Amino acid sequence: MSPAPDRFDDVEQLPTPALLVDEPALQANIETMSEARPGHSLRPHIKAFKSTALAARLAEAGHDIFCCATVAEMEGMAHAGLGADLLLANEVLDASRLGALTETARITVAVDSDETLAAAARAGVKEVLIDVNVGLPRCGCDVDDAGRLADAARAKGIDVRGVMGYEGHLMEMVDRDKQRAGVAKSMEVLANAHRAVGGDIVSAGGTGTFDINDVATEIQAGSYLLMDTHYAKVGLPFRRALSVLCRVISINTNGNYLVVDGGLKSLGMDHGNPTVDGAEVFFCSDEHTTLIPHEGTNWAIGDLVRLWPAHVDPTVAKHERMHIVDGDRVIDVYDIDLRHW
Amino acid sequence: MSPAPDRFDDVEQLPTPALLVDEPALQANIETMSEARPGHSLRPHIKAFKSTALAARLAEAGHDIFCCATVAEMEGMAHAGLGADLLLANEVLDASRLGALTETARITVAVDSDETLAAAARAGVKEVLIDVNVGLPRCGCDVDDAGRLADAARAKGIDVRGVMGYEGHLMEMVDRDKQRAGVAKSMEVLANAHRAVGGDIVSAGGTGTFDINDVATEIQAGSYLLMDTHYAKVGLPFRRALSVLCRVISINTNGNYLVVDGGLKSLGMDHGNPTVDGAEVFFCSDEHTTLIPHEGTNWAIGDLVRLWPAHVDPTVAKHERMHIVDGDRVIDVYDIDLRHW
Repeated sequence: MSPAPDRFDDVEQLPTPALLVDEPALQANIETMSEARPGHSLRPHIKAFKSTALAARLAEAGHDIFCCATVAEMEGMAHAGLGADLLLANEVLDASRLGALTETARITVAVDSDETLAAAARAGVKEVLIDVNVGLPRCGCDVDDAGRLADAARAKGIDVRGVMGYEGHLMEMVDRDKQRAGVAKSMEVLANAHRAVGGDIVSAGGTGTFDINDVATEIQAGSYLLMDTHYAKVGLPFRRALSVLCRVISINTNGNYLVVDGGLKSLGMDHGNPTVDGAEVFFCSDEHTTLIPHEGTNWAIGDLVRLWPAHVDPTVAKHERMHIVDGDRVIDVYDIDLRHW
Repeated sequence: MSPAPDRFDDVEQLPTPALLVDEPALQANIETMSEARPGHSLRPHIKAFKSTALAARLAEAGHDIFCCATVAEMEGMAHAGLGADLLLANEVLDASRLGALTETARITVAVDSDETLAAAARAGVKEVLIDVNVGLPRCGCDVDDAGRLADAARAKGIDVRGVMGYEGHLMEMVDRDKQRAGVAKSMEVLANAHRAVGGDIVSAGGTGTFDINDVATEIQAGSYLLMDTHYAKVGLPFRRALSVLCRVISINTNGNYLVVDGGLKSLGMDHGNPTVDGAEVFFCSDEHTTLIPHEGTNWAIGDLVRLWPAHVDPTVAKHERMHIVDGDRVIDVYDIDLRHW
């Protein structure tokens, strides 16, 4: 029911709310990460942007191995010809859709239990990583169980490529010394698991630890491409690139607040409200955000406003497409074609 | 990229995460509201469920006038043959897509300024409501400006059907006496505006005030159909109907937490975490929720779990379809066809 993805020359022409990606910031983020983590030392995480068009740019920049959070992301990447080496960095109990991809793509799936291993075997998935808990209370087997699981996999004829462990509890620490100590501790656990498991891969890390995780052979980072205000607080060398373009649709008679036409249905809200240059966010409704303008700023009905989301990943997942912009010029449109499950 | 909307007989067969609607609860909610607000004394709000299939059920129950929050919702309703009387209860500066609907549907749009009125006139929209601020710091003109705006509309040849005013700041008050006093005060403002504006319609209210707003000729309620844990706290006579079905994919070795395969990308998070029967929600990640099981409960990998979202509207907006269930039986699938903008 949404309007056709026409090409617009200028942001002024876009129906709002519209998702914008700032091209110079995006390109700078790609280059900054590629310098620190060239080629296969980075396994970009698709979940952050859910777009095969953007994934193709990373492949061109030398990062043609990817990790995904959902089966739908794996399918979309394989169908787009980006399946040279796809890791589902997540557990599944029905791997049949992954098995169906093994004809045309290289498919690896994380397993952390006999049940998830059995699902991979049943589906004909040929390669796994042993997912190890390194401190985040989420998936991952106990370090002491990793070797046993790897043996069980090999007994089923499945190749074990190595280990995976996500230190997600350390991603957004502001104190980098404390973060460094935490990462060292988590990665000691993963290195121990790796010794028991074998294989070439130690897959770990993310945008928050890309430059201090020395144990991972590949870093699973995705948010660095678009960044959000939450990650930006940590002081990483990446620029904010993602915003939700809105229009001022109403101004209170006294001028003490104004309303724009994008709200919590177009924004990831789990990390809190978005931020705006020149105003404070008062609150978000479904399709509105009420702003308190800073003193000395002037606003008119029809003005364009960019909301900077607190969390990039779920913001992207709410939109059908992202408009690539350079200043106010729309230079491309990328479908967000890897949504849903 | 999502799996085809096959028909499944049992929730056990559904790929997870999947959106479920409990049919007995839904039907009870439809009937409870219809008794209190029969026929056109209710203008159901499409934004809460974004599905023409569900809207058609309301039309069958006698509620065939609707309000929408987005132009895409208006378009979808008109194209589905549900355009007998559609109100866009929101301001727009580009009404051209609404104007295009006036051939086949009755289209009314809210205006609160000369700019939004001009947009309606420019697009050929023939009917408006004057949107009046009744206390919520969002859209709506000052009560003293309502008569002038109505005159300006009529001078442009536009029919003014009446007024609209949303007492959204009072929706979730737990103290009903205080809420009643607040609604009376807000509706006094709206009644004053109505005297200045004229017309037949006083459109206001919502799920939280459906039974205490005596001034509104029509109540704009939508959330009552599916309910959420946030509204449920207020003690309204509606049953929770919407959940996100997940599977347990990982259990910590010590059994002190477990992980299900649905997270903040499948849930509206602006009102906080979902709730779960038999466990506490520890935290939500993109595609995971970590749960702390209650003592005495037993869990196994593969168990189905229903997450009850804190906020229905943005939860629905993240999914492509809702599975209508009676217990564990899947009896129908409704497309969520009114998403995006």
